[in-house]
Amino acid sequence: MAIKNAFYAQSGGVTAVINASAAGLLEAAQAHPDKIGKVYAGRNGIIGALTEDLIDTSAESPEAIRALRYTPSGAFGSCRYKLKSLEDNRREYERLIEVFKAHDIGYFFYNGGGDSADTCLKVSQLANTLGYPIQAIHVPKTIDNDLPITDCCPGFGSVAKYVAVSMLEASFDVASMAKTSTKVFILEVMGRHAGWIAAAGGLASSKERPVPVVILFPEIAFDQEKFIAKVEQHVQGYGYCTVVVSEGVKNADGKFLSDQGLRDAFGHAQLGGVAPVVAGIIRDKLGLKYHWGVADYLQRAARHIASRTDVEQAYIMGKAAVEFAMAGHNSVMPTIERTANSPYVWQVGMAELADVANVEKMMPADFISEDGFGITNKCREYLEPLIEGEDYPPYQNGLPAYIRLKNVAVPKKLAEFKI
Amino acid sequence: MAIKNAFYAQSGGVTAVINASAAGLLEAAQAHPDKIGKVYAGRNGIIGALTEDLIDTSAESPEAIRALRYTPSGAFGSCRYKLKSLEDNRREYERLIEVFKAHDIGYFFYNGGGDSADTCLKVSQLANTLGYPIQAIHVPKTIDNDLPITDCCPGFGSVAKYVAVSMLEASFDVASMAKTSTKVFILEVMGRHAGWIAAAGGLASSKERPVPVVILFPEIAFDQEKFIAKVEQHVQGYGYCTVVVSEGVKNADGKFLSDQGLRDAFGHAQLGGVAPVVAGIIRDKLGLKYHWGVADYLQRAARHIASRTDVEQAYIMGKAAVEFAMAGHNSVMPTIERTANSPYVWQVGMAELADVANVEKMMPADFISEDGFGITNKCREYLEPLIEGEDYPPYQNGLPAYIRLKNVAVPKKLAEFKI
Repeated sequence: MAIKNAFYAQSGGVTAVINASAAGLLEAAQAHPDKIGKVYAGRNGIIGALTEDLIDTSAESPEAIRALRYTPSGAFGSCRYKLKSLEDNRREYERLIEVFKAHDIGYFFYNGGGDSADTCLKVSQLANTLGYPIQAIHVPKTIDNDLPITDCCPGFGSVAKYVAVSMLEASFDVASMAKTSTKVFILEVMGRHAGWIAAAGGLASSKERPVPVVILFPEIAFDQEKFIAKVEQHVQGYGYCTVVVSEGVKNADGKFLSDQGLRDAFGHAQLGGVAPVVAGIIRDKLGLKYHWGVADYLQRAARHIASRTDVEQAYIMGKAAVEFAMAGHNSVMPTIERTANSPYVWQVGMAELADVANVEKMMPADFISEDGFGITNKCREYLEPLIEGEDYPPYQNGLPAYIRLKNVAVPKKLAEFKI
Repeated sequence: MAIKNAFYAQSGGVTAVINASAAGLLEAAQAHPDKIGKVYAGRNGIIGALTEDLIDTSAESPEAIRALRYTPSGAFGSCRYKLKSLEDNRREYERLIEVFKAHDIGYFFYNGGGDSADTCLKVSQLANTLGYPIQAIHVPKTIDNDLPITDCCPGFGSVAKYVAVSMLEASFDVASMAKTSTKVFILEVMGRHAGWIAAAGGLASSKERPVPVVILFPEIAFDQEKFIAKVEQHVQGYGYCTVVVSEGVKNADGKFLSDQGLRDAFGHAQLGGVAPVVAGIIRDKLGLKYHWGVADYLQRAARHIASRTDVEQAYIMGKAAVEFAMAGHNSVMPTIERTANSPYVWQVGMAELADVANVEKMMPADFISEDGFGITNKCREYLEPLIEGEDYPPYQNGLPAYIRLKNVAVPKKLAEFKI
């Protein structure tokens, strides 16, 4: 088989470990000089392929590639851009082929979530649809943990660890202050559709070190009366209470709890998160002193407290993608298969992209406790191994020594293309 | 000199390292069995002294005391409670003496900020005012870094490190997304009166790794036009921009920027932070996609990313307080004296409480850059050593193994006292 170049790109919201997948993929590709020539990264995801904005990863030193393993964010830039169907946008597919041909690209690696898997699936069909031979492999990544088939998604474990650690620390803080000051702390976390991230807040509590955490899941319609009763019960029992609330929590009528139609003194619409709304309820109904935080990007960028399990899995997923390509596969995604809980054992599996694209995996109902405010033991057994282990980046002058790549552009060969 | 018992209490907002001071103090006290009997901790600060709610720290194992060094929050509970003057509340001072007498307390150690230093000062004067012999030593602690005389305050360095690391990580994240999505990220941090904590966000940027960080200090009146121009300039130059905003930022008319008189759809007053207000300005004036976060308690509880310098200083301040007492001092506070910047060298100094109580140290004007949105080199030289080094807690099951003490109550000897 002739040597072909490879294309790699990052897609969707970035994570603390997507660059670890890039490191795994790039290092694995170097082990196959007989089949893979250069690996070109797309600048800003698939957009880089469309605009012929390619990055020559061979210009980076081995040390720089290794440093990707401990650098959060998307080193080549990511994008939120979903390819339409071939029928709706033939022009873009033909452009992709033009770019792939011009740069002799025979392998397409796409690192993202559900939408990106769909893009990767469409590219994998180019041989059939437009006669261009390519092997397209998807590398799983999403903090939302909502890809099907794979037991978990790289990126999620580190967010889960961040949320669990933060809730534990904030709970210790509130417990100290509760006698004369703050009694309730509320943390808003990501996860608009599924409560995986909010569920991780439940790990702050354990048998040995109980913490009164109330979880508000997007799967459970918000019941103000029940919520207030639960918080009050905890404050009476423990002296304080902490709440982790998913940004996606809705009222019984299906409206986001964060959507309170806020107006400033001049009547202008204002932004609000859901944490201050929950804080307002605590104030109005219980009259307790509260504090609230919104983790936002900090939770998914927090490489400094990444889960070692997550980093390893992300790295191995990148490596497995190359191995799948070398074995001749197309239109597949490496997955994480859990074979045992305690001690945790997992292995690499393989899923067909057709089974992955556009399918969302929700939290199983039996992961949420009966009252709707906590996690079950089954959920705990699932989550615990995913936050296991630390994997600290090196530091310099008190800060993580995250790498910024050179990102040298590959000379363009084609006419400009407008997206 | 006869053996006397000691009283120790934590006061005000807790930090990631106030328990490290407790560890230093308790371990140092054990080294003086000829002078110090038991160390009784006040449950919830000075309130524990007033209500005779004392904790017998000798019931804790040496391992537990050592674990305080890496456990955030206030292990004995803190309080927000300031003693009034002797004239205004003689009853409370007499009660303190009653409790001290009943438990043979000759040393008073109070671990807190400016208000607490005032309480400690009043206790130190009990010999003169009410004829009860006691040595009162203050142990500095405040994330606000606003105590005078001492070069910095234990608790601040770790918040500074948290904010610098978080801003660096969020900046990497936004940079990856900026092409097709979020271009501005805003993080709200603490520091209502002084911009020390916001200033730490400036450390995310360095000569080797420039990051377009805009800082909004409480010391500088918010100028919307200049701010928008600055953000626009960064977005044009870098493609993105990150903003760290102090909760205490005010308009030119002295009104908190966070105070927008928010109302919900029913006209009810709503809570808001300053981060969403800044985000709204970005949206309305620049039309850019934004994200915002509010660090709140997470920043001061984040022992998992504490500064090693800060942990060491906190521990040594606790130890020094005991040594000062053993040397016969009263009404003093150990301080941190910086003797060199690079390499950083510091030593323990001593301040009179009369010079510390109720004095706030503001950011020097020459720490803020001329345009009001950044830090100067002088500020950077001051801050950098304070975030130097890591001091990771041990982990168990993926979470920090923070200790919860037994907090065994000392039997009460007196009648109840109502505060």
